[in-house]
Amino acid sequence: MPKSKATLVVRGIGQCLTMGQGTEAAAGTGQEDVGLIEDAAIAAADGRIVYAGPASGLLREVREAADVVRVDARDGVVLPGFVDPHTHLLFGGWRSAEFGQRVAGDSYQEILAAGGGILSTVAATRELGEEELVDLGRHRLGLMLSHGTTTVEAKSGYGLSLEHESRLVRAARRLAATETVDVVTTLLGAHAVPPEFRGHRDQYVGLVIEMVRALADRIDFVDAFCEEGAFSVAECRQVFAVARDIGLGIKLHADQLGTNGGAELAAEFGAVSADHLDYISATGTAALAESGTVAVLLPTVPMYVMNAHQAPAKAIQKAGVPIALATDFNPGTSPVMSMGVVIATACMLLRMSPEAALVAATRNAAAAIGRSGEIGTLQVGMAADLQVYSVDDYRMLPYRFGELKPDLVVKQGALAHSNDSSFG
Amino acid sequence: MPKSKATLVVRGIGQCLTMGQGTEAAAGTGQEDVGLIEDAAIAAADGRIVYAGPASGLLREVREAADVVRVDARDGVVLPGFVDPHTHLLFGGWRSAEFGQRVAGDSYQEILAAGGGILSTVAATRELGEEELVDLGRHRLGLMLSHGTTTVEAKSGYGLSLEHESRLVRAARRLAATETVDVVTTLLGAHAVPPEFRGHRDQYVGLVIEMVRALADRIDFVDAFCEEGAFSVAECRQVFAVARDIGLGIKLHADQLGTNGGAELAAEFGAVSADHLDYISATGTAALAESGTVAVLLPTVPMYVMNAHQAPAKAIQKAGVPIALATDFNPGTSPVMSMGVVIATACMLLRMSPEAALVAATRNAAAAIGRSGEIGTLQVGMAADLQVYSVDDYRMLPYRFGELKPDLVVKQGALAHSNDSSFG
Repeated sequence: MPKSKATLVVRGIGQCLTMGQGTEAAAGTGQEDVGLIEDAAIAAADGRIVYAGPASGLLREVREAADVVRVDARDGVVLPGFVDPHTHLLFGGWRSAEFGQRVAGDSYQEILAAGGGILSTVAATRELGEEELVDLGRHRLGLMLSHGTTTVEAKSGYGLSLEHESRLVRAARRLAATETVDVVTTLLGAHAVPPEFRGHRDQYVGLVIEMVRALADRIDFVDAFCEEGAFSVAECRQVFAVARDIGLGIKLHADQLGTNGGAELAAEFGAVSADHLDYISATGTAALAESGTVAVLLPTVPMYVMNAHQAPAKAIQKAGVPIALATDFNPGTSPVMSMGVVIATACMLLRMSPEAALVAATRNAAAAIGRSGEIGTLQVGMAADLQVYSVDDYRMLPYRFGELKPDLVVKQGALAHSNDSSFG
Repeated sequence: MPKSKATLVVRGIGQCLTMGQGTEAAAGTGQEDVGLIEDAAIAAADGRIVYAGPASGLLREVREAADVVRVDARDGVVLPGFVDPHTHLLFGGWRSAEFGQRVAGDSYQEILAAGGGILSTVAATRELGEEELVDLGRHRLGLMLSHGTTTVEAKSGYGLSLEHESRLVRAARRLAATETVDVVTTLLGAHAVPPEFRGHRDQYVGLVIEMVRALADRIDFVDAFCEEGAFSVAECRQVFAVARDIGLGIKLHADQLGTNGGAELAAEFGAVSADHLDYISATGTAALAESGTVAVLLPTVPMYVMNAHQAPAKAIQKAGVPIALATDFNPGTSPVMSMGVVIATACMLLRMSPEAALVAATRNAAAAIGRSGEIGTLQVGMAADLQVYSVDDYRMLPYRFGELKPDLVVKQGALAHSNDSSFG
């Protein structure tokens, strides 16, 4: 650790959650191991961790180096920045009126008939130009950063034409290039059949495949919504076969509203993640364990749609499938930007332990977007993406539900955001 | 409305929720009537509302008066400041470790045996001096204000001796005198039997009665925890009989963990509120409707203790019982400070409409602390306690769960808090 390279030193860490090794994520091991080090220090250089361990192990020349940004964590908690591996970042129009309808008991079908649902967001999104999308995205990424999120996966899927999906992908790429928060881009052309293809599903699936080919060099992943009323296993398979041939990573909205073989399909294609899984079967769980696919659970979604049924997190964990958590940020079923809210919800509604939830929001979330080697833990060599909370116990994060924000967020070794949030 | 008296003018209000008339709260009518006025303006003088209505009705001399604080709501939503009618504001020590135990399935009894539960908070609270309690309270009231709460009920109940309950009441009264947020004080001596009275319940009930007499001139209400394992109906009745004779208002923790006649007891004493009510019976509901007692529901509590059973809000509403919502802020079962979180939770878990939840957090919450004539609505003559949100639809409040904070909070006509929270 040459003295000249240390650019950030964080001292006074009461509890440092290193989150173990990235390799554990893929293996589904250490799922409740937050890698706790008490009385710790961290040093970073050139945006990467060069030391994370007991304070006593920090070399004097680093401790006392000049030209170093020094952070005093005041005996607080430090952990990796959150990775949010499932969001629909870019869309036009909120759907707050629909929230009232849903409380009143209106079904998804009734809301759709009244002009709500995904297609209303598609209409509102198509009206936005690329600049407007970039502005929206910038604002939202800033809010997410204020909640401690340093990497976000952003899906397209509210364009549903080559022109509009391309615009969404371009906007996401521009954000990835310019914003503090890292953005990973996923094409979700197979989100819904747009109105102009009603009665011509095959043609629309053909168009999605065209989108995959046309946008292949600008996207990291291809995703599809495999569900009754959305796309069948066979249709998703057609899209994924092309994506795999091109060498693109695969993600899947699977078994959200019913058991439909989605998890098995994800496993068949060696998908990096299968998401939602509220109704995953035992067979599907075993398939994911076999393929090393990460289960991305989204516990705020059933809460928002007022369905008490949640994904069988305990069974999934027991089967050795690594679990990640995400916000599913979108205007219909989860307008949630805070991974802190998701972690708390996971503890209370999925009965995940605070430790499993924190691993799921960092190390395993990185695995769910294929970034295990770079982010999600505080090991030497990993990106110095981290957050500081002025609390004395990491379990305060889920416990102080909706209240707690990081005092400080660091992205690639640089101070990225601070909140005034000393707690009494 | 004499020109010289207008000291605050709020213009550019897209949606003004006046919350109807305070008298409706007691009658249990208009429970979903938020008193919506679009394109509205508000004027206040000497801390009270002097105009709340269509922008076009604002007199020119008020509109153009000098020496007036002007707020532009930028087409946003304005509503009364939240009233939080059930909190345990003052306590020492958090219980975050217990949260992890509860997720793991430990019962209340197991947690108690491991040194957790109410009595661990009693021990931590008794260690605090009056100044420390006041400092904690000041900090917490500031955070609550940042969430839009302008009046808070604060219970004692973690002292459980005359000395320590007196200290808690004194601290609450000092906060009431000095802080921006109004504080209403409730004595909850009958919260738990302290360790030193184990096996001598009768003596402890006698001590609670002594506390009521000793602190009568410094408290607004007397409360008790009527539950198996806490205090019986007969024990609570002894305490309440004394409170009633002195002329103190009565509140009750009733039917939280099981049906035990708590609601009926509250009705028998004409209590201002009966709180929790997760297991209220039809008889209890009818009794509350008859006595005009407000039902204070606390939906975050079952969520925190991971019990899916919630109060039968719909049946309570249907019976004509006015419903209020509160945080139940406390270190064990609801470390929640935000009424916004409670409103969202009420919509999703109690299936209350956004309108009913907002009425419950303002007009009806004022009734639950006997303040209907002063706060909770934006009628002429009421306190100018209000909050401004930069959103175009009031349903955004429950919908943007955990995200939304007021841009501005006004207390008695004066700017009290601002958050930087423009939403994209």
